[in-house]
Amino acid sequence: MIIDCHGHYTTAPKQLEDYRNRQIDELKDDPAHAASAWELGISDDQIRESLENAQLRIQRERGTDLTIFSPRAIGMGHHIGNESTSKYWSQTCNELIHRVCGLYPKNFVGVCQLPQTPGVRPTNCIAELERCVNEFGFIGCNLNPDPSGGHWSGPPLTDKWWYPLYEKMVELDVPAMIHVSGSCNPNFHATGAHYINGDTTAFMQLITADLFKDFPALKFIIPHGGGAVPYHWGRYRGLAQDMGRPPLKELLLNNVFFDTCVYHQPGIELLLKVIPADNILFASEVVGAVRGIDPETGHYFDDTKRYIDSIDWLSAADREKIFHGNARRVYGRFGARNAKAAGA
Amino acid sequence: MIIDCHGHYTTAPKQLEDYRNRQIDELKDDPAHAASAWELGISDDQIRESLENAQLRIQRERGTDLTIFSPRAIGMGHHIGNESTSKYWSQTCNELIHRVCGLYPKNFVGVCQLPQTPGVRPTNCIAELERCVNEFGFIGCNLNPDPSGGHWSGPPLTDKWWYPLYEKMVELDVPAMIHVSGSCNPNFHATGAHYINGDTTAFMQLITADLFKDFPALKFIIPHGGGAVPYHWGRYRGLAQDMGRPPLKELLLNNVFFDTCVYHQPGIELLLKVIPADNILFASEVVGAVRGIDPETGHYFDDTKRYIDSIDWLSAADREKIFHGNARRVYGRFGARNAKAAGA
Repeated sequence: MIIDCHGHYTTAPKQLEDYRNRQIDELKDDPAHAASAWELGISDDQIRESLENAQLRIQRERGTDLTIFSPRAIGMGHHIGNESTSKYWSQTCNELIHRVCGLYPKNFVGVCQLPQTPGVRPTNCIAELERCVNEFGFIGCNLNPDPSGGHWSGPPLTDKWWYPLYEKMVELDVPAMIHVSGSCNPNFHATGAHYINGDTTAFMQLITADLFKDFPALKFIIPHGGGAVPYHWGRYRGLAQDMGRPPLKELLLNNVFFDTCVYHQPGIELLLKVIPADNILFASEVVGAVRGIDPETGHYFDDTKRYIDSIDWLSAADREKIFHGNARRVYGRFGARNAKAAGA
Repeated sequence: MIIDCHGHYTTAPKQLEDYRNRQIDELKDDPAHAASAWELGISDDQIRESLENAQLRIQRERGTDLTIFSPRAIGMGHHIGNESTSKYWSQTCNELIHRVCGLYPKNFVGVCQLPQTPGVRPTNCIAELERCVNEFGFIGCNLNPDPSGGHWSGPPLTDKWWYPLYEKMVELDVPAMIHVSGSCNPNFHATGAHYINGDTTAFMQLITADLFKDFPALKFIIPHGGGAVPYHWGRYRGLAQDMGRPPLKELLLNNVFFDTCVYHQPGIELLLKVIPADNILFASEVVGAVRGIDPETGHYFDDTKRYIDSIDWLSAADREKIFHGNARRVYGRFGARNAKAAGA
């Protein structure tokens, strides 16, 4: 079985965008406008159509079985509007993911967007997290380390500001993928700079503090192959050592995992060489940041399975871990769900 | 000959820090305080002492010949104070580099810090750049893409805001190393996040615009092995393609170069595998970000020459380019200076 731990619903029917545009319009006249729910009017057939020739076709073509699926990351836009904007937008996006998972329970399992808002305590995300996990059967969440969208105006992930949310994550046994959203800072291209910077920044925050002493069971996935981290693994090991911190393995590799969204062979090889196989989860970010075919290989840039398949020095045991074993372990509820299904 | 293109005067005598602290003290009472020059009272012997057991010892031990040397990057602190603070601080730092190069002309050649200030047009940097190049014989500058120190409040490097400075750089035939300074944003650890993010961000900015059509002779060095870029080279090639931009080679590899400040063997191997040898300049960032010995190898993390030396598939011609040929070409005035010296 092959689990892709990083897929977004980037192909949702147009009514979702219409709802978002309506939210944005309402904010133009009144930035404090209280958002409300809205019947999207999306039929099951429209959902099927949006997936059949996209994520589902790609699953079939590439031989992946199941995608851990969440709302479009760039669309989370936590910097837009106010707390109520983010609340209704997140609920709407998550409900749509729930419908996807209901229609294709073998192909998708849900991860939720959180209703974060700059300056608002993340305690306000707990109710939606509980709803998604307990009512919808979601197995994780996407946590935006910079809800300001490229201004980085909030506290680092190691700040006690975030602790109530972490407590709930641990209680529910769900990990978070640390994933920024769009950028409203003209310095940062979203998928080319802000995403990668977010990953790198989060990892370095985790080096400097004792977050995992306070939460030994807290688990984070750092997407996009860990940003710059594996490429600069020597730098991070060296910085930790200079700062008198424990070795990285001991400090955070029980809690921090990297996905394989790296879009060329040498990058994937470095990742698999440098980071222990126990800490790598297969992912492709499909349909996502890069959609074209690499003229140098004739294959899709984001067909990350090909890169892993062609590494002959990877042991069968490590390959199993990367393709599904680690995902079952990191997404504890997924493991439990499947164990239950297997016993049923 | 081996040229290290990225060294900072991180070991300057204490009087330099005293001057900076005096500047900061004066700003406490009056943020608009007009700074002034100050006689540092540093003797030539103190300068010698600060280098003999540090950069010079390391040059000897590691077999590098010459360092392209600039003021301490984290100390530039363009976000501190006002335009006059930055002006006098930059002049002071650059004058000290000039003295270093005068005392050890075979070991160091100068690159200047620019008196940038958030919100102030970089036109104000031209006089200091000219002084350093024409009077001191410096061969380049460090350009901070985020003088706000982690708030990224200014325009991207591709904005016309920067053009007058670029015109002067081209006229003087000096490249810039794109190098951020310290971070005053608690989200960004300086050397572990802000530095690497700055590199990644700058590269992505350059993909999205036609800066090098406007300035075909402009040259940038992206330090720290190019941030996350080589590791995600497939992503950047793919993003450029999706955006309808020319292939990266054509778009920017006549103008953009990466240094080798990557502190482990797999990282250096990836860099040399992915980026053309014509675009890589040897560097170590010594004495810099990481000062310890790697317990896995028994050698200094930042002894980057060792990593390159141990790559057996690197051709002799490419090795020469990386160790000195490219530096002579990218730092045009250095090449000219040495040609003159050789003819004398």
